[in-house]
Amino acid sequence: MRVAVLGATGLVGGWMLRVLEGSRLPVERVIPLGSERSAGKRVIFRGEEIEVFPVEERHFHRVDLALFSAGSGPSKRWVPVAASRGAVVVDNSSAWRMDPQVPLVVPEINPHHLGNHRGIVANPNCATIQALMTLYPLHRRYGLRYFSAATYQSVSGTGKRAVEELRAASQAFLRGEDFSPSVYPRDVAFNLLPHIGPFDRDGISEEEWKMVRESRKILDMEDLRVSVTTVRVPTFSCHGEAISASFQEPVNPREARELLEAFPGVRVVDDPDAALYPTPRDGAGLGDVLVGRIRPDTGLENGLAMWVVSDNLLKGAALNAVQIAEALFAG
Amino acid sequence: MRVAVLGATGLVGGWMLRVLEGSRLPVERVIPLGSERSAGKRVIFRGEEIEVFPVEERHFHRVDLALFSAGSGPSKRWVPVAASRGAVVVDNSSAWRMDPQVPLVVPEINPHHLGNHRGIVANPNCATIQALMTLYPLHRRYGLRYFSAATYQSVSGTGKRAVEELRAASQAFLRGEDFSPSVYPRDVAFNLLPHIGPFDRDGISEEEWKMVRESRKILDMEDLRVSVTTVRVPTFSCHGEAISASFQEPVNPREARELLEAFPGVRVVDDPDAALYPTPRDGAGLGDVLVGRIRPDTGLENGLAMWVVSDNLLKGAALNAVQIAEALFAG
Repeated sequence: MRVAVLGATGLVGGWMLRVLEGSRLPVERVIPLGSERSAGKRVIFRGEEIEVFPVEERHFHRVDLALFSAGSGPSKRWVPVAASRGAVVVDNSSAWRMDPQVPLVVPEINPHHLGNHRGIVANPNCATIQALMTLYPLHRRYGLRYFSAATYQSVSGTGKRAVEELRAASQAFLRGEDFSPSVYPRDVAFNLLPHIGPFDRDGISEEEWKMVRESRKILDMEDLRVSVTTVRVPTFSCHGEAISASFQEPVNPREARELLEAFPGVRVVDDPDAALYPTPRDGAGLGDVLVGRIRPDTGLENGLAMWVVSDNLLKGAALNAVQIAEALFAG
Repeated sequence: MRVAVLGATGLVGGWMLRVLEGSRLPVERVIPLGSERSAGKRVIFRGEEIEVFPVEERHFHRVDLALFSAGSGPSKRWVPVAASRGAVVVDNSSAWRMDPQVPLVVPEINPHHLGNHRGIVANPNCATIQALMTLYPLHRRYGLRYFSAATYQSVSGTGKRAVEELRAASQAFLRGEDFSPSVYPRDVAFNLLPHIGPFDRDGISEEEWKMVRESRKILDMEDLRVSVTTVRVPTFSCHGEAISASFQEPVNPREARELLEAFPGVRVVDDPDAALYPTPRDGAGLGDVLVGRIRPDTGLENGLAMWVVSDNLLKGAALNAVQIAEALFAG
């Protein structure tokens, strides 16, 4: 099969190529695409250098699968083009996620939604995926009623320039030098910015709404109650999440742990007395969603609390997108 | 009046001296005390160098006020000694907080509890103080039913060695060098450790229980429902908290903001479109508790969400302790 990758020079695009190399998909050819700025750069696939082309309709000719990770603007424009040329598009941007015609899929959770796709499948928000990967196996057993999530999100989700900014800002801080951020509105080094995406009139951020609305759509629970605060923290990769959840039935934490251990794509790391719990530095580069600090919630009826870490570029983006493609083409 | 300061060479002790200098207390003499290791060091009070004595009973002779910040061990041993010599002890450790005979006080919230003290008053946990400073003015109006807090806690709460460790570990990481932590069980640089204090059998940490139990005691609400996850983050000073709260009555966010603005010790910093929200780098060294991101909660009945930042060494420790003393001696 022929696979186009839009945004191939970005952080997520790079991981898409790596994950494709090891996937079950019978990839014959990869066509890396990018902006005018990226065109002419080279990416590596299976040890070979391939030139990046500027995104144009002709490059979707005879493409079976198009993986998009170039932001909402390019996705709004090019997803319909690629789909009309016969490709199935798995789009990592937020542009199509809430379109009722577009399935929004985590393959371990709602693969049945794929049956209705019309050439476009949306990849959910990174912070949403890792929350639901741990809540869903519990939901099946206990019936989810409510959850709150506070996120601790790394800079890699913003892109390569943000990674460089955290590094440069941290060096400046440690040397006692001034630093003027250009990617983030405030200096992120040794700091916390409760600011991911623009704010609505009520002061709720776009990232917060994504977690609320996408969770409802993926779980087919339009009335699910979700509280969210999303925060950028000075880590390079992986997002952390503090989750408190309330269920219809009483939760046995030991059984919950077994349900999480048995769920594909989740790894339990939970021996806090031995200082074993998920951390971003441990989770970087791993495909699994790591969960620990599994414990009774002190405040919620039938409650369970946990701490979840996942590489936002992998299960939160590139890996989930390729898994969607595998479910479609090699399922 | 004569004031003994136990732990005078520590981070909190240093701030106690600075705050005492500007306080309404008629301080005639400060007697700085410390461990054998600290004895002989010198601290500054009102521009004068004063020698630190090793803590011994005779140094509490004719002491009116003793401010303790040397950890639970020394507090368990020396608080009764100082109190029996006639001093009023304001203890910043957790040793006496849950003793039913000991008031646990945030002067803006429950000064009436001071009436029953028997020579010992406990200063609450830093993360508890800043949560309640913002929840209490709302509780008076709407009736608090439940809150969840996820904390983003700086290393300064652990002490001077932790501050040095974050600095050294960050430098090592940026240089690509290995680092072996000695203060924290894991490397805190560019990382997240959901581990503050030891864990109970259920896997709930001591810091998490402090927030639950101390909130109930301070607010006189023994059945208050509280969900907490406490996390150490790579910031030098100030704790951040993502709070979602549910009340008995519907909350008007604009009115809530006015209630917060009117409450002494709280400063509203809340214009997220202009990237104005509390951050730890802004809050360092400030006595006020900063609150922003005040918004409807998307998941809770009669809910309000907010983001709270406070210098854990000041309102979370030294400042609140001196304010307790002011309420007792200069009220």
